[in-house]
Amino acid sequence: MSLSPLIDKLIESLQVLPGVGPKSAQRMAFYLIERNNDGAKRLSSVLDEAVERIGHCNKCRTLTEHERCSICSNPGRDETMLCIVETPSDVMLVNKVTGYKGLFFVLMGHLSPLDGIGPEELGLELLAQRLDSGVVKELILATNPTVEGEATAHYISEMARKRHIRATRLAHGVPLGGELEYVDGGTLSQAFSDRRDL
Amino acid sequence: MSLSPLIDKLIESLQVLPGVGPKSAQRMAFYLIERNNDGAKRLSSVLDEAVERIGHCNKCRTLTEHERCSICSNPGRDETMLCIVETPSDVMLVNKVTGYKGLFFVLMGHLSPLDGIGPEELGLELLAQRLDSGVVKELILATNPTVEGEATAHYISEMARKRHIRATRLAHGVPLGGELEYVDGGTLSQAFSDRRDL
Repeated sequence: MSLSPLIDKLIESLQVLPGVGPKSAQRMAFYLIERNNDGAKRLSSVLDEAVERIGHCNKCRTLTEHERCSICSNPGRDETMLCIVETPSDVMLVNKVTGYKGLFFVLMGHLSPLDGIGPEELGLELLAQRLDSGVVKELILATNPTVEGEATAHYISEMARKRHIRATRLAHGVPLGGELEYVDGGTLSQAFSDRRDL
Repeated sequence: MSLSPLIDKLIESLQVLPGVGPKSAQRMAFYLIERNNDGAKRLSSVLDEAVERIGHCNKCRTLTEHERCSICSNPGRDETMLCIVETPSDVMLVNKVTGYKGLFFVLMGHLSPLDGIGPEELGLELLAQRLDSGVVKELILATNPTVEGEATAHYISEMARKRHIRATRLAHGVPLGGELEYVDGGTLSQAFSDRRDL
């Protein structure tokens, strides 16, 4: 037995959000109805607007409400460097923490033949055209350090090699901070064999 | 530097939800835009409808989209018993787990003079009228076991006493499951003095 079908519907709808289960959804629903009607109205209208207007940048494929995203349309960025990432959040992250001033290309996923995600779904045709244009001098492969991410990086590095473009991959190794004891074996062994002179 | 002002606005708007910080909000935003446009549209429209239509039951003050909530308008419930709770989620909880078949009265808070929440804000005038009508034989005080909840329960028990209505409070004691070692001192000492014959 429920209090109200509309509250139930709200609790259920809130569960589309990743990481939100029935309990948090109930807490959110009551909070919005009892104490933050303005926040709820604003969220509703921004959601509508976002779904309506946000699409993909026609140059790098990231999410944007314009034809071309703010990074691709910034003339101050170095267009000879191209960093390949899997998602728009990776763009934000790399851009925020690394000081990288080049451009990005967003795959919106990784190669995963079993899920029907091949080169076409990742926009690699668009990437190929861009590499053919001769502007890009270095391709930085910043896909995730997972099996799929590595396979995707390998595939794209082949595209670069054929065009004689330098392709680099993020270094693997021990993360800063923390203790060696908590680093997984694969990472530690990679860090060991890639050791550097001080 | 951000990807897109509209995505930023969505990430910011999602942070009105309790328990959602910048990182989860970003994850939610990308998920909704990239992978669940339908869920986002539905959430937006249900939010609008909920804010628009949900108000308070004119008998028990809980949240409902009708004049009177589904519990108050159910003729099968025992109207001689009235359970006082602080929030609509408490109604759902008591109703779900206890097998209670009486009615509820929802304070939508507790007495908190420093925050300007007195008897009027809790609808105690409406409660007084209801007690005066002579239908209620027992008042179950199920406010939270906090200082404010106890004070509120005490205040309402006085209203019942004046009208010669029986007022009861939820039992305090050791929760089921777990170990005594992890029960706080106050609860354990209360459970000790309220011990029962087997």
